[in-house]
Amino acid sequence: MTNTYQLTLADIASQEAAYVETIFSLANGHLGLRASDPVMTSATAGTIVNGFYETRPIVYGEAAVGYAKNHQTIVNLPDLRHIHVQTATGDVFRASERQATTLNLATGQLTEQFELRTAADQRIRLTLTSVVGQTTNEIGLRYQFEAINYTGQLQVTKTLAAIDGDEASDDPRKARQVTSLNFATAQVSPRQTNVTITTQTSHKAITLGVLAMGEALTQTIELADKPVLDYIGAVSVIDQPLPAMVGDFATIAADSAQYWRKVWANSAITIEGDDQLTQALHYNLFQLNQAAGRDGVTNIAAKGLSGTGYEGHYFWDTEMYMLPYFIYTQPELARQLLAYRYSILPQARKRAKALGVAQGALFAWRTINGEEASAYYPAGTAQYHINADIAYAVGTYMDVTDDRDFLNQMGFEIVLETARFWAQFGSYRETQAGRRFEFFDVTGPDEYTAIVNNNYYTNRMAKHNLMLAQQLARLVDPAVLRRLNVLDSEVQAFGQIADDIYLPYNQEHQINAQDDSFFDKPVWPFESTPKSHYPLLLHYHPLTIYRHQVAKQADTILAEYLFPADTDQDQLLREYRYYEQITTHDSSLSRSVFSMVASRLNQMDAAYHFFMDTAQMDLVDLQGNAADGLHLANLGGSWLALTTGFAGMHIVNGQLQFTGHLPAAWSKLTFRVRYQNRLLQVEIDQQQLAVVLLEGDALTITIDGEIQTIRQA
Amino acid sequence: MTNTYQLTLADIASQEAAYVETIFSLANGHLGLRASDPVMTSATAGTIVNGFYETRPIVYGEAAVGYAKNHQTIVNLPDLRHIHVQTATGDVFRASERQATTLNLATGQLTEQFELRTAADQRIRLTLTSVVGQTTNEIGLRYQFEAINYTGQLQVTKTLAAIDGDEASDDPRKARQVTSLNFATAQVSPRQTNVTITTQTSHKAITLGVLAMGEALTQTIELADKPVLDYIGAVSVIDQPLPAMVGDFATIAADSAQYWRKVWANSAITIEGDDQLTQALHYNLFQLNQAAGRDGVTNIAAKGLSGTGYEGHYFWDTEMYMLPYFIYTQPELARQLLAYRYSILPQARKRAKALGVAQGALFAWRTINGEEASAYYPAGTAQYHINADIAYAVGTYMDVTDDRDFLNQMGFEIVLETARFWAQFGSYRETQAGRRFEFFDVTGPDEYTAIVNNNYYTNRMAKHNLMLAQQLARLVDPAVLRRLNVLDSEVQAFGQIADDIYLPYNQEHQINAQDDSFFDKPVWPFESTPKSHYPLLLHYHPLTIYRHQVAKQADTILAEYLFPADTDQDQLLREYRYYEQITTHDSSLSRSVFSMVASRLNQMDAAYHFFMDTAQMDLVDLQGNAADGLHLANLGGSWLALTTGFAGMHIVNGQLQFTGHLPAAWSKLTFRVRYQNRLLQVEIDQQQLAVVLLEGDALTITIDGEIQTIRQA
Repeated sequence: MTNTYQLTLADIASQEAAYVETIFSLANGHLGLRASDPVMTSATAGTIVNGFYETRPIVYGEAAVGYAKNHQTIVNLPDLRHIHVQTATGDVFRASERQATTLNLATGQLTEQFELRTAADQRIRLTLTSVVGQTTNEIGLRYQFEAINYTGQLQVTKTLAAIDGDEASDDPRKARQVTSLNFATAQVSPRQTNVTITTQTSHKAITLGVLAMGEALTQTIELADKPVLDYIGAVSVIDQPLPAMVGDFATIAADSAQYWRKVWANSAITIEGDDQLTQALHYNLFQLNQAAGRDGVTNIAAKGLSGTGYEGHYFWDTEMYMLPYFIYTQPELARQLLAYRYSILPQARKRAKALGVAQGALFAWRTINGEEASAYYPAGTAQYHINADIAYAVGTYMDVTDDRDFLNQMGFEIVLETARFWAQFGSYRETQAGRRFEFFDVTGPDEYTAIVNNNYYTNRMAKHNLMLAQQLARLVDPAVLRRLNVLDSEVQAFGQIADDIYLPYNQEHQINAQDDSFFDKPVWPFESTPKSHYPLLLHYHPLTIYRHQVAKQADTILAEYLFPADTDQDQLLREYRYYEQITTHDSSLSRSVFSMVASRLNQMDAAYHFFMDTAQMDLVDLQGNAADGLHLANLGGSWLALTTGFAGMHIVNGQLQFTGHLPAAWSKLTFRVRYQNRLLQVEIDQQQLAVVLLEGDALTITIDGEIQTIRQA
Repeated sequence: MTNTYQLTLADIASQEAAYVETIFSLANGHLGLRASDPVMTSATAGTIVNGFYETRPIVYGEAAVGYAKNHQTIVNLPDLRHIHVQTATGDVFRASERQATTLNLATGQLTEQFELRTAADQRIRLTLTSVVGQTTNEIGLRYQFEAINYTGQLQVTKTLAAIDGDEASDDPRKARQVTSLNFATAQVSPRQTNVTITTQTSHKAITLGVLAMGEALTQTIELADKPVLDYIGAVSVIDQPLPAMVGDFATIAADSAQYWRKVWANSAITIEGDDQLTQALHYNLFQLNQAAGRDGVTNIAAKGLSGTGYEGHYFWDTEMYMLPYFIYTQPELARQLLAYRYSILPQARKRAKALGVAQGALFAWRTINGEEASAYYPAGTAQYHINADIAYAVGTYMDVTDDRDFLNQMGFEIVLETARFWAQFGSYRETQAGRRFEFFDVTGPDEYTAIVNNNYYTNRMAKHNLMLAQQLARLVDPAVLRRLNVLDSEVQAFGQIADDIYLPYNQEHQINAQDDSFFDKPVWPFESTPKSHYPLLLHYHPLTIYRHQVAKQADTILAEYLFPADTDQDQLLREYRYYEQITTHDSSLSRSVFSMVASRLNQMDAAYHFFMDTAQMDLVDLQGNAADGLHLANLGGSWLALTTGFAGMHIVNGQLQFTGHLPAAWSKLTFRVRYQNRLLQVEIDQQQLAVVLLEGDALTITIDGEIQTIRQA
């Protein structure tokens, strides 16, 4: 029987080193450790710190005004797990083979077994247990040695190994090279080494330290004793000194275990009939939790803290794919993630001006420090929808928490400034069909179509952004309205514009249209495209892709998931069928959305199929590039497909609703969510969906279309 | 009275050094000399050789498949005019002030007077006369010295000065830095130094040489004698050794004078009533002639050989703005320029494949060696129209020359391969209005609108390209058809597709529409745009420009000029008025086209106004950046506005036609053209347009709508 809180080498797609490093990476929202081999060095090994980046100018073949100026690249820091092991005669154990690996999702402990070899084929066994503190930035490292054919003395030195430079790559999904780091090493005591790393151009500093629990960092041990050496590693807060290390392995492990107990209390999932799937979902949520910045000034990178792919940047993925999980299970953490967006609002105001919009704010498409770092605006800055995505997340957070303090402090200002942007960015046009408010030269979520007019998703989301600003203006403290110079007339204008925003519709197919000209284009020649030519972006010029009807990911369908009251089932079915056949799912963000919409349509075979690909994406390496880091958005997407998909969870007009659709393969699905200071347990079997109130006051909800009031037993 | 074959400092906009260097640059289609100060060094001084470039990888902030791989950058070579002058005591004349400059357009001689100064304020006068061989690559340099307050001995050394590195710039219209040059200097004799320059990555070599007509390159002279020192400079053919220098100043000057006599025999213009304008036009044609590559493997760079702007690249400008002048006055040279396109057809075939089109050829948007060098595809590769532009030029060349040898050797293959591209690149769509052939995600000539569907200019030109292929298939040697695997069915398909190509029309304004969505967009806020914010491209993000109705240059109007039979006068007037008010003319390619269309509409004030800006563009520095090099396309445009504009010269259904429209300011306009082995003189006064046959057989033409047969007197 599968332990649903444990992952081993047998559960994953391959033993390829970089892939294994990603899958078994450990983190605490601030620091991330890849599960790299502790005695070998590689370009992919290293420690990552959320938001610790270096900048360098973006070089354009042909530059233009208003382009993003600087790359922001997350820095690969020295590997805290590295260790130097040699025999009494100085033969170094440089070669290593991974024998076993077990990640305990309930405690956060990672146990790995390696067979180490010298050049003279002297062999020993190393068992390394790693655990990351969740309320501190200390990590516990336990190295246990056993003889194989070498039985003598060992000299073990804990080091802070330097990192190899990354190689440059044309694959936009990989990370870039950072070479401008300064290292200052301090031997604090025989037991402790610190290294302070400063970046040359972003002017940031961080300190890493390692501490031996024995007498010194270098120790000589006898293999016959099956010796165990404990070390503590630690990472400072950015631009702050490293505090004294206070934990030992046991206290760090206890801290970790306690943290995960709390997480699972709200996040545990049971799928009766598929333990392996439950395990995959637990893994997904484990990694999602590890990746999320908890300090209000960091966010969740596209690859989390599991790799340097996408340069450690934060995208719209956080709000649209990952934040719902946190809003519904750990609203305090969701607030911190939204606080990050508030912290970069000044940069977003500047960016709006740079894009020719005098009022409001435009959030950067990809960023760490709030400034735009997208070097290809057609699939970057042109994705203006990020503004509305962030506003949508604020709306969901308010629906679920009713956190007025957040609204007054930050939330309203975010929604207001993004709404102001839309009002100025769009334009009115008189048409035979009436007066329309439109948006030109934008790119929607589907990056296989760029620079189009009236992208349905963008327009629908902008409409929501403006309506939300109007709604929240009624809820927010009037003093905030005065501080932000919000007049009644402005709020009314938001409502009017929202009403007038044009939503393209294709008459021929009787479905919402991805954009004004999407259906004019010829369909991509799928039948003559070899399988090896996917993902298309790695095989065709953007112009070739753009001039065809082909989608990388859900776009209009994504809007349908977000606004379940918009479209009736008949039209939705037509839409789903049409878009599904022209979508390649080359983006990891696609399948979870198709699964949700398929659930709503009771297309349960398809919903199940898309869900399985989503739930196990990195564990089966579906996208083929998990070695660069996990697909964080998809991890969140798997939770969405479960809750919003199979359980039909939505908030409509301030009321929580559920509609059950259970795949035939399962007998029961159980999960928990928090909602307005309550804890709910949702249980779906093949007959019905039931909601049990575990904590909090009675609540009126809608289940399968019927209004019910639930109370604690 | 103005000498219409002479230009002096009094005739130009400013005395700013880099600007003067451009205006008075000398060239012979192969080598170009900027009129830089001969004793000072500057980043803008130097010798340019047509087609001598270095490559380096294009760095993209975010790269993608099929992007242009390498920059091709014209190389700034040592300044052949540089000289080192010092007093007997070693005081070097490093400072210099230009006193007078005269360019003789009839002989090609440039005479410049400088006052040279040492740090100790010793002053002398230098008169430098430069002349470039037109049938050799030798240049004559005559340095004459006179005392001012220094009267003693001078030591003069002819050098091949190294060039300062250019500075990098964000302005896409400037040149880039080339640092990877190897210099090998050979002291051939006391009289001669050669320097061979090889590029590190494009693997090209060129040799420059200087030869003293006296005993040695270094000579000591007495100022009291008003001494004259002659030197010869020479430039090899690319990748060939430098031949022995055979000319002296007089023979090179004679060669130059003879060449220009021949040019003016066909190119002389008389505008009675405005000698200054006649002078400007002569200057324009002089520079156009200097810039044109004559060897069949080079072309005309956007800045000619007058500067390194636009990296010395060849664009569509050659065919659409410059080639008509050569076709109608020097068809042999026009053939050589088209031969260059034929020479890069293999690269164009590869490029088509890289853009997802299996058959045919796609010419690079900007190139020297035939490979795409545009690092920004929305205003580069997406301008597919270059294919049809080149085909159009072949068509004009055939109309004017009926050169069957060219057709069989090269011309048909160019037109065929470009037609094949269009047939595969476009796609059929069933609409309520019938079956249409369409082109998606293209950019027209107007670079303030990019990545649009059904750009009128592109579609109309593609239609012409396909029809031309069909027509020329009837004319070409059948053996050529067999060699190129042309079946009747393919030729018929070309005709069908040409018929079916969709040409967008705007019902509201009753005019041809620049593209499918051009009129949906809000008009650019011209009234709130300060004058200092033009050109817009240097002040606004591309996305901001693209989402508005605003044109950098003629686009639909350009198609109207090219196809005079397409549109009646009423519609044309509406179109002209509409597009004129939303065009900024930020491109130097715009005004000449508006002038031509205004002439056709008998809007003679406007035609005259646009023409004057065109004719004097660089002499008044209208665009403000002539320092980087001349606007070659506009030089050709001024000839077009005169001939096709004021004289209404067109070939319609194989017949040459003229329609006279003379601006009120002039009493008479006279110019000459060659047409099918004839030489015609066109004379327009306020009463009528007359065509005199100077050479060749009788010819039937249309003048002001009446068919006439003209015979030699």
